[in-house]
Amino acid sequence: MSDTPTALDLPMADPLPEQTRKYFDVCEDKLGMVPNVLRAYAFDIEKLNAFTAMYNDLMLADSGLSKLEREMIAVAVSSINRCWYCQVAHGAAVRALSGKPELGEAMVMNWRMADLDERQTAMLNFAEKVTIESSKITEKDRQALRDVGFSDRDIWDIASVTGFFNMSNRVASATAMQPNPEYHAQAR
Amino acid sequence: MSDTPTALDLPMADPLPEQTRKYFDVCEDKLGMVPNVLRAYAFDIEKLNAFTAMYNDLMLADSGLSKLEREMIAVAVSSINRCWYCQVAHGAAVRALSGKPELGEAMVMNWRMADLDERQTAMLNFAEKVTIESSKITEKDRQALRDVGFSDRDIWDIASVTGFFNMSNRVASATAMQPNPEYHAQAR
Amino acid sequence: MSDTPTALDLPMADPLPEQTRKYFDVCEDKLGMVPNVLRAYAFDIEKLNAFTAMYNDLMLADSGLSKLEREMIAVAVSSINRCWYCQVAHGAAVRALSGKPELGEAMVMNWRMADLDERQTAMLNFAEKVTIESSKITEKDRQALRDVGFSDRDIWDIASVTGFFNMSNRVASATAMQPNPEYHAQAR
Amino acid sequence: MSDTPTALDLPMADPLPEQTRKYFDVCEDKLGMVPNVLRAYAFDIEKLNAFTAMYNDLMLADSGLSKLEREMIAVAVSSINRCWYCQVAHGAAVRALSGKPELGEAMVMNWRMADLDERQTAMLNFAEKVTIESSKITEKDRQALRDVGFSDRDIWDIASVTGFFNMSNRVASATAMQPNPEYHAQAR
Amino acid sequence: MSDTPTALDLPMADPLPEQTRKYFDVCEDKLGMVPNVLRAYAFDIEKLNAFTAMYNDLMLADSGLSKLEREMIAVAVSSINRCWYCQVAHGAAVRALSGKPELGEAMVMNWRMADLDERQTAMLNFAEKVTIESSKITEKDRQALRDVGFSDRDIWDIASVTGFFNMSNRVASATAMQPNPEYHAQAR
Amino acid sequence: MSDTPTALDLPMADPLPEQTRKYFDVCEDKLGMVPNVLRAYAFDIEKLNAFTAMYNDLMLADSGLSKLEREMIAVAVSSINRCWYCQVAHGAAVRALSGKPELGEAMVMNWRMADLDERQTAMLNFAEKVTIESSKITEKDRQALRDVGFSDRDIWDIASVTGFFNMSNRVASATAMQPNPEYHAQAR
Repeated sequence: MSDTPTALDLPMADPLPEQTRKYFDVCEDKLGMVPNVLRAYAFDIEKLNAFTAMYNDLMLADSGLSKLEREMIAVAVSSINRCWYCQVAHGAAVRALSGKPELGEAMVMNWRMADLDERQTAMLNFAEKVTIESSKITEKDRQALRDVGFSDRDIWDIASVTGFFNMSNRVASATAMQPNPEYHAQAR
Repeated sequence: MSDTPTALDLPMADPLPEQTRKYFDVCEDKLGMVPNVLRAYAFDIEKLNAFTAMYNDLMLADSGLSKLEREMIAVAVSSINRCWYCQVAHGAAVRALSGKPELGEAMVMNWRMADLDERQTAMLNFAEKVTIESSKITEKDRQALRDVGFSDRDIWDIASVTGFFNMSNRVASATAMQPNPEYHAQAR
Repeated sequence: MSDTPTALDLPMADPLPEQTRKYFDVCEDKLGMVPNVLRAYAFDIEKLNAFTAMYNDLMLADSGLSKLEREMIAVAVSSINRCWYCQVAHGAAVRALSGKPELGEAMVMNWRMADLDERQTAMLNFAEKVTIESSKITEKDRQALRDVGFSDRDIWDIASVTGFFNMSNRVASATAMQPNPEYHAQAR
Repeated sequence: MSDTPTALDLPMADPLPEQTRKYFDVCEDKLGMVPNVLRAYAFDIEKLNAFTAMYNDLMLADSGLSKLEREMIAVAVSSINRCWYCQVAHGAAVRALSGKPELGEAMVMNWRMADLDERQTAMLNFAEKVTIESSKITEKDRQALRDVGFSDRDIWDIASVTGFFNMSNRVASATAMQPNPEYHAQAR
Repeated sequence: MSDTPTALDLPMADPLPEQTRKYFDVCEDKLGMVPNVLRAYAFDIEKLNAFTAMYNDLMLADSGLSKLEREMIAVAVSSINRCWYCQVAHGAAVRALSGKPELGEAMVMNWRMADLDERQTAMLNFAEKVTIESSKITEKDRQALRDVGFSDRDIWDIASVTGFFNMSNRVASATAMQPNPEYHAQAR
Repeated sequence: MSDTPTALDLPMADPLPEQTRKYFDVCEDKLGMVPNVLRAYAFDIEKLNAFTAMYNDLMLADSGLSKLEREMIAVAVSSINRCWYCQVAHGAAVRALSGKPELGEAMVMNWRMADLDERQTAMLNFAEKVTIESSKITEKDRQALRDVGFSDRDIWDIASVTGFFNMSNRVASATAMQPNPEYHAQAR
């Protein structure tokens, strides 16, 4: 297990601070691995903490979006950006959370071919437009989300999750971040 | 002064926690305003704190990139994404940090027309490619940065600042975030 | 099992001609299913036969390209075109033929992140350019293939497999063709 | 008359099989030439036969689309892909079948400027979307064809002709296939 | 002050003809400078005169479009094309004519974020489509302009101003034309 | 012969001024028609005169570029923009000036497939880049023209002709300008 899961020569802080070590132990326990994105950020603990704080708030905190919906956005966005790391890791999450392997595949391959309801379709249409041409978003696009039942707070969350993966996709691709190989066989 | 600097009906927490109030007071003192992006996030203090932690680490902490260089990336990326909020706010920062109004304008309008050295040109070429087609980044692109003197840690920082504004641009555009009007006349 | 694996109401010829029935039986024996693309074409046996004749020649006949290489092109092209059917079916073929699940995933998600040699990289670069901007192919692009050892006959085959999936991707997507669900779990 | 009408060194089978020779003689009789695409494929008779079988079924067999309509799709698609060979050869076919030279020119130059009825406009709109962004085709696009009178079988044919020229365009452009010079002056 | 405000070595005619000298004197009087675009064209007085005749007719003659509206089109188009010269020079004109610095900024950065009425929005939507994909303009696009009150003569003028800046943007960018530095601080 | 060769209701000035009438008579004599673009502009004689002055200087005055080369740029640019009017009218000019019908066709269909020398290839590469992404032109692009023998004055002319047709293409497409039917059969 190399200490640099990217193409950059940035070894993890050594030793890791107590708090980080514990966090990584929790990952090992719950996921069977420390996701490489965390190991990649661990060359600088401030950066790691900022990343995990934002990630955990966005993906795990209370929201009008279910965890599965947030992961669906994550994969659909990562597919548009063709991010190797995020499609692998979050594709596995969609498969696991939904219990439908084909849903994870569809988010990776072409979300329009998935069996989605009106709400999810509107959500992914918005995420797609924000990813591809955010400067053309107008009130009409936000209203389309309200029309299928999303609140303004939900719209913020859709925008934020979409934005976050547009960031992570680029950091991962720019540094050639490799996903943990364990993801490939999960929840198939 | 409206409490919602975006098109979403998400008023600031009221009252603001002590720590947030102090932070906003510091902004007023140093900048003459509370940047609207902070007021936009302040409907949820957890989200505000995660955002400011990441922002401050990326843009203000030690780095092989100067603060001006990080702001140049911010504006060049925001120009590609045509983000109204970020071009206004960070365009002002480039003008102020460089003392060259025309440099801020060039980052907004067409960074290739700015008077840049080889290092800055390589930096912005990389940021542009990561913004537009991150999935096509290869080792050759990273090596081009090393060839003009950037370290692997610097490459991480270029990728991270580029990624961060690809996130912020989308959150701002998706929510129609309005910049504080004071920015327009600054450092002209 | 519906008789129309697409969104079009085009039932299979009934009864199927003897030759077709035997061909479908062979598919069941060897693959455990009749691929839906064949069932889709079976509303018109002339069209089915023309399709299978071209497919079998391209993908199974002698060639300087291995069967795996042809399937890699198939998936890389189908990923660019985001074809649900072909990514599912041929992604499974890459996993099975290579014995490397992650290679199939990389062809779907971002072929540049796969562990490829110089020959395969040149092959997929050419297939990508032919898919995205074929009108800009010049002698220089063909020479790049010769430079890594491909013959003119091999170049024809790369062009033909690339072309074929640019056809199939569009027929499948235009008709909302659904892949057989068995593919998802294969060779994981 | 060179034996390789492409940039690849792939001479025709010599001697040609009896059946091929007869087929080429028919071409000479009816068209005054052997189209170079056939001569290009003739280095391998299996490939030639597969190509002609599919071509003849698609373009000449019974269909709800007239031969002219199929040729109009051929040229409009080839124009999007800027295929030299196919625009020349099938542009001549549109001029000849319609008796309107300007219709062939409009299919090459900008099909929206042609004098088309509602049915043909819908047909070419669908062909264009399938060519440019097939992954975004949804039921709404198919319904738009049904709304102007196309049957599901017609939709299959539109998709198939569109797909076929997306293949042929790429094979021709990838190999620098040259059209027979006779086409240029035909039906002007 | 260099005689070649572009990257090309094309010095101004010397001496300038009487008429040109007077015209430049008028510029100095009214604008405080001779715009560099005029100095760039002045290597050939025929070309200079043709340019100024067309420019003055389009931007200053009677029209159903106000001078401000024509400058708004100029900047919005120049922003799409990312022309350094024209965004600087005409951005200043929008600020000056409107008395709203933020309007000039919005035309440069993202016209959709400006505070526009229905008429101006339709006008810029048309100018944008004509700039990006003019071949897809149909009667429906022209009708959308008539629906908000534009006459056919106004449509001609919108198309012509849009076209003119698509020309000027390209001449300026192709020759690396530098705007006069005085523009940056004007009307802030 | 309708008085409005576009989709706009803008009849020609009536009566035409003496000078215009004479100019149109010369057109009839030399070309056998009054090109519709002139009739389209003739609703306003100032605009007509500005257009013809610029056109005649660019396309007919002395230049390091031959008239044929200028027409080749005209058609290659008009093909990228898919302008119906300009491809028809200037395609005819390339056929007539070169005596090679297939050269006119190649400029319309795919200029890379024409039989061009190094100088013409460089010229059209530059015209293409200026048309598609002028903001990315750098000194390297201009130097590539100097390297094949173009002077700085020639570069200006290439940029200007390219710019001019990027204007005319948009005016013609925005107004649905129809070419005179006589062009189609000319010089075939």
